[in-house]
Amino acid sequence: MKHLLSIDDLDRKAVEELLEQSDAFLDVLAREIPKVPALRGKTVVSLFYEESTRTRLSFETAAKRLSADTMSFAVGSSSVKKGESLLDTVKTIEAMGIDAMVVRHEMAGAPHRVAQWIDASVVNAGDGRHEHPTQALLDAFTLRRHRGPSLDGCRIAIIGDIRHSRVARSNLLCFTRLGAHVTFVGPPTLMPEWIDGWPVTVATDLDEVLGEIDVAYVLRVQQERLGQALLPSLREYYSRYGLTAERAARMKPDTLVMHPGPMIRGPEIATEVVDGPRSLVREQVTNGVAVRMAVLWSLIGSGGQVA
Amino acid sequence: MKHLLSIDDLDRKAVEELLEQSDAFLDVLAREIPKVPALRGKTVVSLFYEESTRTRLSFETAAKRLSADTMSFAVGSSSVKKGESLLDTVKTIEAMGIDAMVVRHEMAGAPHRVAQWIDASVVNAGDGRHEHPTQALLDAFTLRRHRGPSLDGCRIAIIGDIRHSRVARSNLLCFTRLGAHVTFVGPPTLMPEWIDGWPVTVATDLDEVLGEIDVAYVLRVQQERLGQALLPSLREYYSRYGLTAERAARMKPDTLVMHPGPMIRGPEIATEVVDGPRSLVREQVTNGVAVRMAVLWSLIGSGGQVA
Amino acid sequence: MKHLLSIDDLDRKAVEELLEQSDAFLDVLAREIPKVPALRGKTVVSLFYEESTRTRLSFETAAKRLSADTMSFAVGSSSVKKGESLLDTVKTIEAMGIDAMVVRHEMAGAPHRVAQWIDASVVNAGDGRHEHPTQALLDAFTLRRHRGPSLDGCRIAIIGDIRHSRVARSNLLCFTRLGAHVTFVGPPTLMPEWIDGWPVTVATDLDEVLGEIDVAYVLRVQQERLGQALLPSLREYYSRYGLTAERAARMKPDTLVMHPGPMIRGPEIATEVVDGPRSLVREQVTNGVAVRMAVLWSLIGSGGQVA
Repeated sequence: MKHLLSIDDLDRKAVEELLEQSDAFLDVLAREIPKVPALRGKTVVSLFYEESTRTRLSFETAAKRLSADTMSFAVGSSSVKKGESLLDTVKTIEAMGIDAMVVRHEMAGAPHRVAQWIDASVVNAGDGRHEHPTQALLDAFTLRRHRGPSLDGCRIAIIGDIRHSRVARSNLLCFTRLGAHVTFVGPPTLMPEWIDGWPVTVATDLDEVLGEIDVAYVLRVQQERLGQALLPSLREYYSRYGLTAERAARMKPDTLVMHPGPMIRGPEIATEVVDGPRSLVREQVTNGVAVRMAVLWSLIGSGGQVA
Repeated sequence: MKHLLSIDDLDRKAVEELLEQSDAFLDVLAREIPKVPALRGKTVVSLFYEESTRTRLSFETAAKRLSADTMSFAVGSSSVKKGESLLDTVKTIEAMGIDAMVVRHEMAGAPHRVAQWIDASVVNAGDGRHEHPTQALLDAFTLRRHRGPSLDGCRIAIIGDIRHSRVARSNLLCFTRLGAHVTFVGPPTLMPEWIDGWPVTVATDLDEVLGEIDVAYVLRVQQERLGQALLPSLREYYSRYGLTAERAARMKPDTLVMHPGPMIRGPEIATEVVDGPRSLVREQVTNGVAVRMAVLWSLIGSGGQVA
Repeated sequence: MKHLLSIDDLDRKAVEELLEQSDAFLDVLAREIPKVPALRGKTVVSLFYEESTRTRLSFETAAKRLSADTMSFAVGSSSVKKGESLLDTVKTIEAMGIDAMVVRHEMAGAPHRVAQWIDASVVNAGDGRHEHPTQALLDAFTLRRHRGPSLDGCRIAIIGDIRHSRVARSNLLCFTRLGAHVTFVGPPTLMPEWIDGWPVTVATDLDEVLGEIDVAYVLRVQQERLGQALLPSLREYYSRYGLTAERAARMKPDTLVMHPGPMIRGPEIATEVVDGPRSLVREQVTNGVAVRMAVLWSLIGSGGQVA
């Protein structure tokens, strides 16, 4: 594996191997000194054209735990403002001698183009509405730790603004690769145009599916959509799709709750639910570091024993 | 000691132990290679909700000298903008696996809340008008190096905008713990409302106290207060409270001069005074690194010999 | 050598020694683990008052390859906004215990003043329209790798907005030190006022010199100049000075093409030329890391063998 650009490129076996490698790195993170020299001398650069903290910090933590050097390219303060093209920006960074580039870009497909241009490995950290593969991998990893290695038969509802969510798309691909059944739940206007032919069920009434699901995966509503015809009223939206304590009580006792963050407590997901025993939101973050270690190690590790 | 949230939590013995540990680290900083492996494998995150360079760089330098990994969370480019709560931001960062979080926040008490939420150690790097404990410790450390281990009987004037200064409050607590006598000097409108019952003398005329003090500790005037009723004219303020060369000449020959920075040379404190032989402003900065090393080491060091 | 402030301070021998040291570091960069412990325990701070990515990343990469600790001072989020002077900012940073400061400032001569104020070594990373010495060194290094150790007799055209370019000035000094002959090519309004008495030929017609040169060194046009009387029309400018494929075809077969970046592909320099076999633009970037390693090593290395 040279790049990680989309879950679509990975078959079940490839996903499973990454997740098994992640298990080994989660053990590393539990050590007194949670570091291994696996990527000593390697350089990992994060190139983020969209603001992010969670994802960038997670990748940088992963790289540091592997003893790689890290550098961060803040687009706001960059040559980009002087008219430099994406091509020249990435070729310039590559020419400084890097091994992996973690790219977030508002344009779908941008990391794929970067991967065509440079010899270093590219990790897609989110491209437009397209994919966010490491989010899907860390979510699958987190579920497996609670459900066992197979997700066969696991019923997962992904709830909210599916249309604008790269997480929904990557997670659908990854969860179904592992045997789960996914339902997209949200208003018809927030369903994506690409849905026909995909292995997914669609529901518009959250209350109807609540009692049958094993996992409630809540998406963030992007408030910048408000005022568009797609989402006329946030209040009405939350009344229908917010994961309230009352709704959570109607789920099966062992239904798990996940959210990719950042969350809006209250209307989007109730505080009792976020902080309750069925919530995996903190584990998702911790596991994200282990999964990104596995991804970086798979792409630019030199082989041999990790630790 | 799990957290360092305020000087108010520390008795004289606790302060003295931190300052003695700081002495050992100041020696480390004088070495050819000024680093020790004391915090190898530990991760220190700075989370600053107010702009700062001096304090953040000082903490990061301290952490690096101890061989810790450092990460910096820039609030401007963060999930905070997307509506995430302080609780979720700090829980998310903690979930990535960190050992200490250095927090600056414009809200008094914010670091205390963070300390209730997370298992990692929290250092208050300034919270609203409340406290800035490492500034007080580094100032006490600096004075002790010139006055001997005890500050008993030392007369210190803290001059300027006391009302809005967390430094004034922390330093009052710390200096008096060590036996010093503190006078707040400034216009009545810039005295704090909490002053009754505190072990401090108040003076409104700097010229009256000048000849009697051992230390002149000058605060920055926060220009954003101008135009408020509290501070009608900066010119008049400086004419009464600026530490001019002429005023410095009327102090005792061994009176020391301190400032927490950033300074406004000229009206606030004369260039001859800043750069003169009695000024400790550069030593304060250097000592700040040693004191912050001692704080981090005390909070998350694993015991045993440092170096 | 204590500081690197301008090429003007270096004689031919000093330049050649730096370039020979750079050769050794370029070999280091080709290793499996491209790091040496040469600056372990040293701290290099970048202090940039102008936005830059390329140069700052290149210096930080160089410092990390030498195992130095690095810190970055972002002026936007700094004490500078609170009225602190350049003097106090650099004295404060120095007091934290640093070994080298890499300074970019919009004011010509600022790094020289910093060098007078502090004991740490200062590297000029670009000061106003004055100098950018490491750019000149990396360009000379890159040319030498293609032309052999001497540039005697090499004819180099520096093309574009000479007037506002610190690169043109530093490169003129450096190239001529090594024996090259330099021609400035651009409109008369974009020639600098300081040109009289300098060892340079001036041409206003690119097409006249194209066939005779060994190197075409294209400068970025600073679009912020547009609308000033100096540069009434970008379109007309490019029609006369853009390095089109057609113009490149009229150069000698072995004429080399260089650009300091960031480039504007198309009007300024054609894509076929940038990506063609005679283009050195990527090598310039890679070599920049090696040259900056040599500069930092020469300034603050402790002597002895590097690697």
